[in-house]
Parts: sequence; structure tokens; C-alpha cells
Amino acid sequence: MKKRNAVVAQSGGPTCAINATLAGVVRGAAASEEIGTLYGALNGVEGMLDGDGRVVDLGSLVKDDDGIRLLAATPAAALGSCRKKLPRLDDPDGEATYEKLFDFFARYDIGYFFYIGGNDSMDTADKVSKYAAAHGFDIRVVGIPKTIDNDLLGTDHTPGYGSAAKYIAVSMAEMIRDCAVYTVKAVTVVEIMGRDAGWLTAAAALPRLNGEGPDYIYLPERAFDRDRFIDDVKAALERHPNVVVAVSEGIRDSEGHYVGEGTQSGSLDVFGHRYLAGTGKALELLVKEKIGCKVRSVELNILQRCASHMASLTDINESLMIGEAGVRAAVSGVTGRMMSFERTGGEYSVRAVSKDISGLANKVKTVPDEFINSEGNDVTDECVEYLRPLIEGENPIEFVNGLPRHFVIS
Amino acid sequence: MKKRNAVVAQSGGPTCAINATLAGVVRGAAASEEIGTLYGALNGVEGMLDGDGRVVDLGSLVKDDDGIRLLAATPAAALGSCRKKLPRLDDPDGEATYEKLFDFFARYDIGYFFYIGGNDSMDTADKVSKYAAAHGFDIRVVGIPKTIDNDLLGTDHTPGYGSAAKYIAVSMAEMIRDCAVYTVKAVTVVEIMGRDAGWLTAAAALPRLNGEGPDYIYLPERAFDRDRFIDDVKAALERHPNVVVAVSEGIRDSEGHYVGEGTQSGSLDVFGHRYLAGTGKALELLVKEKIGCKVRSVELNILQRCASHMASLTDINESLMIGEAGVRAAVSGVTGRMMSFERTGGEYSVRAVSKDISGLANKVKTVPDEFINSEGNDVTDECVEYLRPLIEGENPIEFVNGLPRHFVIS
Repeated sequence: MKKRNAVVAQSGGPTCAINATLAGVVRGAAASEEIGTLYGALNGVEGMLDGDGRVVDLGSLVKDDDGIRLLAATPAAALGSCRKKLPRLDDPDGEATYEKLFDFFARYDIGYFFYIGGNDSMDTADKVSKYAAAHGFDIRVVGIPKTIDNDLLGTDHTPGYGSAAKYIAVSMAEMIRDCAVYTVKAVTVVEIMGRDAGWLTAAAALPRLNGEGPDYIYLPERAFDRDRFIDDVKAALERHPNVVVAVSEGIRDSEGHYVGEGTQSGSLDVFGHRYLAGTGKALELLVKEKIGCKVRSVELNILQRCASHMASLTDINESLMIGEAGVRAAVSGVTGRMMSFERTGGEYSVRAVSKDISGLANKVKTVPDEFINSEGNDVTDECVEYLRPLIEGENPIEFVNGLPRHFVIS
Repeated sequence: MKKRNAVVAQSGGPTCAINATLAGVVRGAAASEEIGTLYGALNGVEGMLDGDGRVVDLGSLVKDDDGIRLLAATPAAALGSCRKKLPRLDDPDGEATYEKLFDFFARYDIGYFFYIGGNDSMDTADKVSKYAAAHGFDIRVVGIPKTIDNDLLGTDHTPGYGSAAKYIAVSMAEMIRDCAVYTVKAVTVVEIMGRDAGWLTAAAALPRLNGEGPDYIYLPERAFDRDRFIDDVKAALERHPNVVVAVSEGIRDSEGHYVGEGTQSGSLDVFGHRYLAGTGKALELLVKEKIGCKVRSVELNILQRCASHMASLTDINESLMIGEAGVRAAVSGVTGRMMSFERTGGEYSVRAVSKDISGLANKVKTVPDEFINSEGNDVTDECVEYLRPLIEGENPIEFVNGLPRHFVIS
């Protein structure tokens, strides 16, 4: 059988695990009799279309197990990323885009295209495989998901989520220790990523496994009531002096307005612009106004998606595994499908299976009702049990000069 | 020789190493023939004076090497903390405070008082020892410094600084990877703690040891010029699309105004309050106004002082060592002095020596001229060489349920 080449690319926001999946694709391609060269395309489909279409020979860059482990321990996207959505297949103006993309594939004799990314990337994989089928191109396309947000349908969880959740949980445990040292009443509001789904914020509950956690957790799945929030905080301050709450950046009031918008009203910056300070800051100001005690807000910010020094070993290993499985699936004939995790029964373990992308892409999986308490100000034990295995283990890091070594394509 | 008891307490802001020093005191007291019981007093001198004066028997809580390592790996202050300054010794109204304090010492037959903390705590140790000398109390007082800020005079560096510096450096290296994935021009402003001294912000340079670092570093030791900053950023954007700058929260303009104050002018929150958004946010708005490219700001916040999961092994070991050395010093007759680090020549190592506190407390050690470049927008290689050994090694952490185990007094 004639060998065909493969190309892999990355898309969407960085995570701690997207390079582990890339490493899995490298491992899978190296083990395959059917794949010739594995190219890495820089900056996703945008690089293939609008950029210089630069590729690297990944197999020669990542040769052995040490290379695999180094790549898997490097945050963000080693191949660079993009935020590009392909045109609809029935859009006549989009034809040129697809022709350019398939010219790229032809130039490198690509028989396999692996696209690692979020929702938009699954949509891209779907469209490219449909275009190929409609135009008789012999290319198999497999989407391999990643997102710290865990909001993708059709998978038990997403690669990248476990590491983000672990970083959030560890940071929360440490901040709770930090907040506990003084006897004066104080409130700390921790703002966690998640515009529409509360999965990352829910991870703030995990320190409870070791006996301590935040006082309340507010997810975007429930309408946020400012009066109720102040009552909650007052009640907690009666119980102990140091109150810690976790809030999702995306919480909205019953009218659908983001809580972070509150600081916009009447607020102008030095240039006269309206200014959105953020959800945590808005609640900090609210507590100061309504309770008047010491209060601060902390925004975990981009470290949630790139703090590879605290990556979940479970997440990294699963991300490697799903990348490898994606290659095996394509070689066995799968195309136009997305790889996903299924939990097996009993002791925690997952297997990677492929799923039809149609109906999965461009939708959001929110935290289900049974994971949120009836008051809407916390998650349930059932939620913590679901999360628990995802943060198990610490991915080993190689340190040079006291700092993690990273894989960098120069 | 009759054994006397000892008491140890913690004060000031949390660090990753203040418990390691506490563990060193435990180890030192256990090894001493002269010390009976080692008490831990909760919430510093405030607890002794205004609180319930609760003490714990530390020797029985931390019995073996495992206990020592667990305590040393726990962030924040295990004994709780306070922010209390003792009255001046010549203040007649202060007499009652000292009487109360020495009643506390008498109650527990305290012959040794170890106070671990920042500037105020060294001042406290100084005053208590002078009061004891003036009133004939037989008690030896030794101050053991800690501060993430590294701004204490009379010591090569402070316990706690190395771990904060390591967390900042590791986070900076990871954020640089995160920022590198897109090809679109973007500026990231990272705000780092440090009101008057730029030591923590200087640590952002450390990833350069492995080949990559921020484009610029602005310390409070130099007047900040907004026009010059915009020129710097524009020049960097010519070189590459992803510009990362590190700024100290305490940077001020040539008239002495904090840069973070900029966002106050005309800015009112939802309650009509003037609102200080912070230095990073102010510069984010400035870049948006003057350059107009994609820009974001990141505030590292309290994790700088409590992220024990990324503590420097050098810092933790030195902090243990200085705690132990403090006990040995007191037993050998030292009182009214502060422990400090002296770098020995050649290969990096430090020894702990005691110093006269007078003239050291209540002052700030800023970053020296030779550590700052002539343009005032970066640190020098000499600075990086000074910092390099302080972040060496990773303190081993015990994980339970995927989260660090902490020592907690309940």
C-alpha cells in the first residue's frame, strides 16, 4: 500500500494539553505503516490559507520518548494557533477558500488531516471532510478536541480541562490558606474563566476533598442575585472571619446582564471610555458598599490555561492517548469525525472513540442540574465526584535553571 | 542548667517560606538541651495581647521529619498572623502593652521568643529585647525575617523571596508561551507585586536563562514615563507580534503619582466611588488608546505569596536553616538581633548570621542601580545572575486527591 503523508495543526485558545495531543499524533503517526511524513502546519488553517503555509517535519523534530514527554509538558500550541472559521459549504464565495486549502493538501500529498482544537476546529474538520467527499478528494479528516472550558458535547470531558481544573483547585487551596491567617473579617472573591459554562469554576470545590473549600460557588448556569449574594456572604461571615467565594466570569443577573457590566454604569476611564472591570471587581465593590468589611478580588486569568507546571497527569496522559487514537481511527478509515472520551464503568478510566461531528460542534455543554445545589450557590458532591479523577497525578516537568523546559519551534 | 520554654509566632503577610522557618525553629528547639517546651502562639503579638493568647505545643504537633517537611511545604502562616506594631518604649501609654506581653511570657515560663515576620516584626523583636533588658527580664529575643518583597536591609535576600520569584518566573515563562500562539499583534502587561521595591518584578527576567523573557521590565526604582513606554512597546511590536511587559504595581511617574492612579481620574464605579483599577489595567487602557492593538493585563495577585506548589527548594531549605540557626543563636546568648543571610564566595551558598536590628528595621532595600539598565526599562544581566540561584530546585510536595497536602492547626 502506498504511504500517504499526514498534516496536523492546532487551533483555538491555548491549553496545557493541546501539545500532549499533538505528541500523541506524532506517536501514532510514527507507529503507522500507512503514514509517510507527518507535517505540522503552523497557525492552523489560517496559516495554510492566508499565511505562508509553513510546515515543519514533526517526526524529525520529535524523535523519541524524551521529545514526546517534553512536547507534552509544554503549554500553549507548539504549532501556533488561529481563530478562523471556514465558509459554509453552500456559500459560492467560499469555494476559493476550499480550493486553496486542498491545493495545500495536494502540495504535500496529504492523505490525513488531524485538527486539534475547540468547537470551531471540529466544525472545520466536519466541513473539510464533507468538501473532500463531495469533490472526490482522498483525504481523511479527524478532529481532536481540546478546551479548558469542558463545554463540548459528545465527550465525558475535554482534553485540557483536567489540567486547568487542577491549577484552579490547587490555587484555591493555597489562597484559602493565605486568607486564613488574619482574624479580621475579610472577603475574597476569586473570578474564574467560563463565559457560558461553569465547569472551571466548579473545580474550585475540589479542595473540599481534603477538608476545605470556598464558602460559595456561583456558576453562569444560574441567574445571579446580588441581594442573595450579599446575604450569603453575611451568613458566612457569621461562621468565620475569612470568607472565600468562587465566581464564574460569565455570571448574569435574571435579566441576562453580565454582573461585570455593573462597573460600567457611570464608570469612565482616563480617556473617557466606558470600562468593564470584570465580575470579581464588580462583586468586590458590591461587598465594600453593602457590608463594608475588608474585601479583595482575584482574577486567575490566563494562567488557568497555560500553567503546565501544575498539569494533571491524568489529563496529559489522556490527551496523548486521544491523539494516538485519532491517528489509528483515520488509518482504519474514519473521516469527518471527532474523537471523544467515554468513561468506562467501575474504577475510573476512559477510552477514546470517534463520533459524528454534526450536532456536536457549535453547541455548549453546560453544568447539569444535578451538579448544582438547589440554592444555586454551590456545586453538589456528585459534581465533585465527577471532577475528582480528572485532576489525579502530576505531570513530571523537566527543570532547567529552576524553570520548566519547553518545546519551542524556532 | 534549668530548661526554659520557648515561644514562636508569625507576623505580617503570608509567604511560601514562613512555615519552613517555623519548621526550622521546631527542629532547632528539639535539638536543644536548653529549651523545654516550644509553644506556638497564634496570631502573633496581637494574639498574645488582645486575643485569647492561645498557644499550641508545637513540638508535639510536629514530631518527625515528615511533619517538618509537611509544615515547610504549607503556604501562609500556620500559626496565623497579625499586623501589629508595638508602642515606642518611651511612650508611657505603651507600658501596659509591654506588661501584658511579659505576663504572657511569665505565664508560660518563656526564656526564648522567636518572631518570624517582616519589617514590623523585626521592630517588635528589637523593642521586646530592649524592654526585657531595661526591666531585668531574662528572655532572649531573636527576629527571623521573611518577606516575598526582598526589601529588608542587612541580608543578601529574604526567606520567602526565592519562592515568590520562582512562581513569577515560571508563570512568566508559561504566559510567554501562551502569548506566542497567534500572529496578530498583541500586548500583554503583567502586573507584579512590589510597592516600593522592584525585586519581585525583576524576577520576570529569569526565563531569559532559558532563552526567552519579557520585552521590558519597569521597576518602581525608576520614574515611569508613559510616552517612553508607548515608544518602547511600538518598537517591540516592530520586532515581533507578541509583546509582553512586566510592571511593578508601584511604578510612579516623575511627579510621584502612581501609574495606577491614572484610571481614577474621572472614573467612578457603580456606587459613585472613585476607583483605582491597578497599574496593569491603567497601562492596558493606555496601550488601547495610543496604539490600538489587542491588549490585556494580568495581575499575578496573592498567588505570588502563597503558591507553595512551585516553591524554590533553595528558599525552603534556607528558610528551614535560618529558623534552626535562630534557635542556636538564642541558646548561645544572642538577643535583640535579627537573623540574616550572607552569601559565601565562589559556588552559591549562604550562611545565617545574626545582626543588630537597629538601623535595619523600618527601612526599604531597593533594587540597586547596577541591576537596572541605563534606559530604566529593564534589569541587567548582573541582576539575573544575583537572582539565578534563589529559584534553584523544586520543593517536593505531597499530593492527596491530586492536591497538595497542607499542615493545618484546627
